This record gives sequence, structure tokens and C-alpha cells, in this order.
Amino acid sequence: MRGNRQVHLVSRPGNGPELGNFALCDSVIADPGPDELLLRTLWLSLDPYMRARMYEGRNYTAPAALDQPMQGSTVARVVASRHPDFTEGDIVESAHGWQEYALSDGSGLRRIDPALAPVQTALGVLGMPGQTGYTALVHHGRPQPGETVVVSAASGAVGSVVGQVARKMGARAVGIAGGMAKCRYLTDDLGFDAAVDHRAPDFAAALAAACPDGADIYYDNVGGRVFRAVLPLMADRGRILVCGTISVDRDAPAGNDGSGPAQDLLNAALVRRLALRGFVYTDPELMERAPEFRARVGGWIRDGSLRWREHVVEGLEAAPEAFCGLFRGENFGRLLVRLAPGETA
Amino acid sequence: MRGNRQVHLVSRPGNGPELGNFALCDSVIADPGPDELLLRTLWLSLDPYMRARMYEGRNYTAPAALDQPMQGSTVARVVASRHPDFTEGDIVESAHGWQEYALSDGSGLRRIDPALAPVQTALGVLGMPGQTGYTALVHHGRPQPGETVVVSAASGAVGSVVGQVARKMGARAVGIAGGMAKCRYLTDDLGFDAAVDHRAPDFAAALAAACPDGADIYYDNVGGRVFRAVLPLMADRGRILVCGTISVDRDAPAGNDGSGPAQDLLNAALVRRLALRGFVYTDPELMERAPEFRARVGGWIRDGSLRWREHVVEGLEAAPEAFCGLFRGENFGRLLVRLAPGETA
Repeated sequence: MRGNRQVHLVSRPGNGPELGNFALCDSVIADPGPDELLLRTLWLSLDPYMRARMYEGRNYTAPAALDQPMQGSTVARVVASRHPDFTEGDIVESAHGWQEYALSDGSGLRRIDPALAPVQTALGVLGMPGQTGYTALVHHGRPQPGETVVVSAASGAVGSVVGQVARKMGARAVGIAGGMAKCRYLTDDLGFDAAVDHRAPDFAAALAAACPDGADIYYDNVGGRVFRAVLPLMADRGRILVCGTISVDRDAPAGNDGSGPAQDLLNAALVRRLALRGFVYTDPELMERAPEFRARVGGWIRDGSLRWREHVVEGLEAAPEAFCGLFRGENFGRLLVRLAPGETA
Repeated sequence: MRGNRQVHLVSRPGNGPELGNFALCDSVIADPGPDELLLRTLWLSLDPYMRARMYEGRNYTAPAALDQPMQGSTVARVVASRHPDFTEGDIVESAHGWQEYALSDGSGLRRIDPALAPVQTALGVLGMPGQTGYTALVHHGRPQPGETVVVSAASGAVGSVVGQVARKMGARAVGIAGGMAKCRYLTDDLGFDAAVDHRAPDFAAALAAACPDGADIYYDNVGGRVFRAVLPLMADRGRILVCGTISVDRDAPAGNDGSGPAQDLLNAALVRRLALRGFVYTDPELMERAPEFRARVGGWIRDGSLRWREHVVEGLEAAPEAFCGLFRGENFGRLLVRLAPGETA
């Protein structure tokens, strides 16, 4: 038995997390039983995603329980083990939350080699944040040489990887961060091509100046007004990757920056992994299917299994009124003007 | 020489198209010269996309010129030809706009076989609208058997193809249309599984009832409040296909239903063919790249070419304040709590 301090979630936030939602609690922890091991927390990461866990709102994981230690990823040292796979002194990645010690049956632990990199990088650049930045940029973003990649929260654990990987793939990296110190870090230390301070009064203009050819990829970690500033700069065929919405609190009462249809869409895209795509039928990947379309739909028309309806108005002079009615839903079926009665072939 | 009536665009809309934007004009047209042919318009289609052409705002095509015939797709009969490839009586698809006759050098004409289907279907189910509905649903939507496909403006030329093709691919088709007559047509004539009247007071509830398992695909032709009603119903991994925004007028002065960040996003997605995607790093397609991530980023860390920054706070008791500061941008780099000073391995 030894003392084990924990930080509990004791209440759910009203309009954003506050100190009062948490309480430092003393508890005791038993020695490991058979096939158990005792972990001493060395490092605990604090992540934006934890905010959503504090609410009972819908998310892609269950909410955190009240009067229990907050959830969180940790790096820990095995201080006592009765588990065959772990011995005292092992360093592991765990997820036992905001507490000093934890008992484990070994499930979900990942052993860390201290020789590779500082062990806490398992919670950062070599862990979930770095992996999130790298995999989504490469898989969903597909940056091409010469393209411009804009990333928000760019000095953070995800954003700093996104920008640096974008450059390694031959793209221009434009970072958005809060304050000049973070912006200087992006350009001077991380080699971003440009950095823009979203707190500066001329933010939108500075961002546009940093993206003379527009933004081919926007890796969005923040949502809100920063998202709205990047949107007008998106280039044709641009890809918007919705990773997070730290700037806005999707579960907070309506009326803050996070409310409204645009944020609803970003939140839905994130939580439900939606894909939204705009297109025009002349896009090459769609035009390639024109013969398939003619063959299949043509066949369904001939066999009578696909039907349609026409709304025909007579005479060129009827076109303006019929066209204006189109936007009042006055037509019922395909709106056509017949100019040569009796000559419908 | 013969008379040729035309409808000209004579002014650009203020808040939506109105009759005054158009004028019926008399003109004359010459007989065809060498390698020319004279076309008699049989059918003219009126399409929602034409509204955007009426403005000077950015679009995926040039705006319509003032005091010229409005642009538009047509089906025409060759009434005189000095062109080697066309003879009098041929039926062709053309795009010579809102006028009774047009001279052509043959470029851009597509000959239509009247034996296949009524020639005006070249402007509808067998033309651009049908092709738009079929190709985008199949290519971008990829409906799976048992999935639910929701389509707006469902009784129109695009929507009616989308719903019927969805059913042929084994999906459930739920149509949204304005008024009971159109809704009955969808279910009774086109075989949609359900139809919902967006004008009904209980629209949102009726739509939810029609989608008990949510919407896997939303093929959006209208935007605006209908889009906002479908969004909460999108299922995990849902696909939103932005085909049109007929319900809102993106170029109209702000303040109408079309203004606001959500519509800005839909308009940008449509005009610039954007793809927006939400994701979580545990998504299978991203987890598959975890080894690639560890190998590449691990290598860049070892060779010093990829850098990161940590914001370390000392002691478990410091976690709540540091966590709350995360949402005020107070951390600079990866936010970590060190619980065991001197034990950072």
C-alpha cells in the first residue's frame, strides 16, 4: 500500500473547462497481485481532445466519469511486477490518466526504448500527435511538390509535424499560430516558409500574402475564425483536413464562436469522420465515366426501369418567367423550353 | 437572312434573378457560309447553374455577357448545312443559348439518334443532369447495399436519377422535395423508399423518421436549411456530395439564407471542388501507416532534421491549470506534466 495522488473530474464544464471542474485527491494503491504490475507515472500528456471527454455530449469516445481520475496518456516506469512480460525498470506507454501510480494487468501497455529518443516523445512527436499529423497529411492530404500546405496551431505537437513533413515532401509550409514568438519559432527553428499570427489585426491579409497561390491543403486544428480566414484562400481541388477545433468549444452553450452551422459541419466531420466533396460533372474523374453512364442509364431507360419527368414551357418568350420560377420550386421535373412545336423529332 | 428571336441578359441580379434581367430581342441571322451550318433550336434547357452565370462573381465558368443571348444547352435541327459532317435534318446537342436559330462551324455539336430516346432527353436524363447524378453518386458516393442515400431536389433531373440509381445499387433512397405532389411522385412513380416534404412544419422530424439508421450519403442539390436538417443525421463515415445550392443565392447580398459560414463552405466546395474530411488517428486507413510513420519520423528525429518543442509543467497538481490554459493558447509546444523529477529515464 502506498499513497497515490489523483486529479479527479468532479464536475462537467459550463462554458469551457475551469479549475473548479477538477480536484486533487489523495488515495492509496495496493501492491500488484498475481500477473499485475505497478506503474509510476513519469509523464502525463494534456491534450485538447480531453475537453470533449469532460462533457456528456456525443463524441467518438465515451465521456470521462465523474469522481474518477481524468483520462490521459502517460509514460510510466514499472516499479514492481508480478507480470511475466514486464520487469522493474521497464519504461512503458500507458493510459492510466491523471494519477501518480497505477496497477495494470499489462493490457494496452507499449514498451518504450529509451535509447531511441527521450521517453516522453512517446506522448508527442513519436506518439499520437505526431502520428496524427503525419498519417493524415500523407494519406488524406497527399501534398504534391510545390503545393501550399497551411496548418493551424502550427507550433503544437500535431501542427509542427505537419509543417515539417509537408516541407520534406516538397510543399510550401505556412503555419498559423498565436503570437510572434510562436511564429518566429516556426520560421526560424522549424523552417516553415511563412508563419502568420492569428492575433494580429491584419491576420487575414497577412495570411493571404503568405499564400500567393492559395492553399492546396489546410490542416485544421482549430476551427472557428481561423478556419473562416483560410477558406477563401483554398485553391481549386484543395483538401481541408479537419483534425480538431480547439479554438471553439463544440459542447459549450450556443452563442460562442463555436456555435453556428459552419462549426456544426466541422464538428460533425470530425466526430463522424465525414467526407464532403464538391464537384462538377465535367471533372475528369467523372467524365471518364460518361460511357458507363450512357450504357447503364440508357439501358435502364430502354427497359423502362428508370423514369423521369419533364416540365415543358412553350416558346422562347416563356423562358425568363420559367427560369425565375425555378428558384421558387415551381417546376416539377426537368425544365425545358419547346421552341418548335411539332418539331420534337 | 431570317428573323431570329433571342432572350438577352440585360442586367445582373440584385437579390436573385427577376424578369427585368431579361429582354426578348429581335435579330436577324445570315445563311450559313462555307463549312457552316444553320441550327433551328428545338429544345432549350433552363438550369439552376445559369443563375451563377448571371453574376460577375467567381464561378467555375465565365459569367454571361450583358446584351447577349443567355447561355444554355439546346437540342437543335440542322436546317441548312455547308458543313461536310452535317446534313439537313440532323438532330444535334448544342449550346447556343436562348435563341431560335444559330450558326455553327460544327465545333461542340453532338449528333443525337432520335431512335434511342426522345431527343430532349439529351438535355436531361441522358444528358448533363443525369450524368451528374449518376457519375458523382457512383464515383464519389460509392453507395453500398443497405446504405441510406438522401437526395434533395429529388424530383428534379439530377435528384430523380440519384435516387433511382441508388436503389438499383441496393441502397435505400430517401428523397427531399417541396410539396406533397412531388413527394408522392418519388415514392409512387420512382420507387423511392421514402420522401419528405421540406415545406412541411415537421420536416426535420419526418426526415429523421425516414432515416432510422442515419444518412450514409447525402447528395445535396440545395444547401441552406435543408442541408442543415440533414447534417445531424449523417452516419459515421458519411459522404456529403455538394452538387448545387439552388435554395440559396451565393452571390446575392449577405443576410439571406445563403449567407453565413456554412454556405460559404458549401459554395467554396462546389466552385473549387474542395474535399473536406474529418478523421481520427485511430481510423484504420491511418493506423495502417503507423509503421511507416515510426520509421520515417523516427529517422528524421535521429538525423536531427525534424524538431519539436515541449512545454513541461512540474507535478500532478499543476495539471488542471495547465490544461485550462491549453484553450487560451498559453502553452508553447507539446504540453506535458512531469510527475517524477529526475526520473525522466
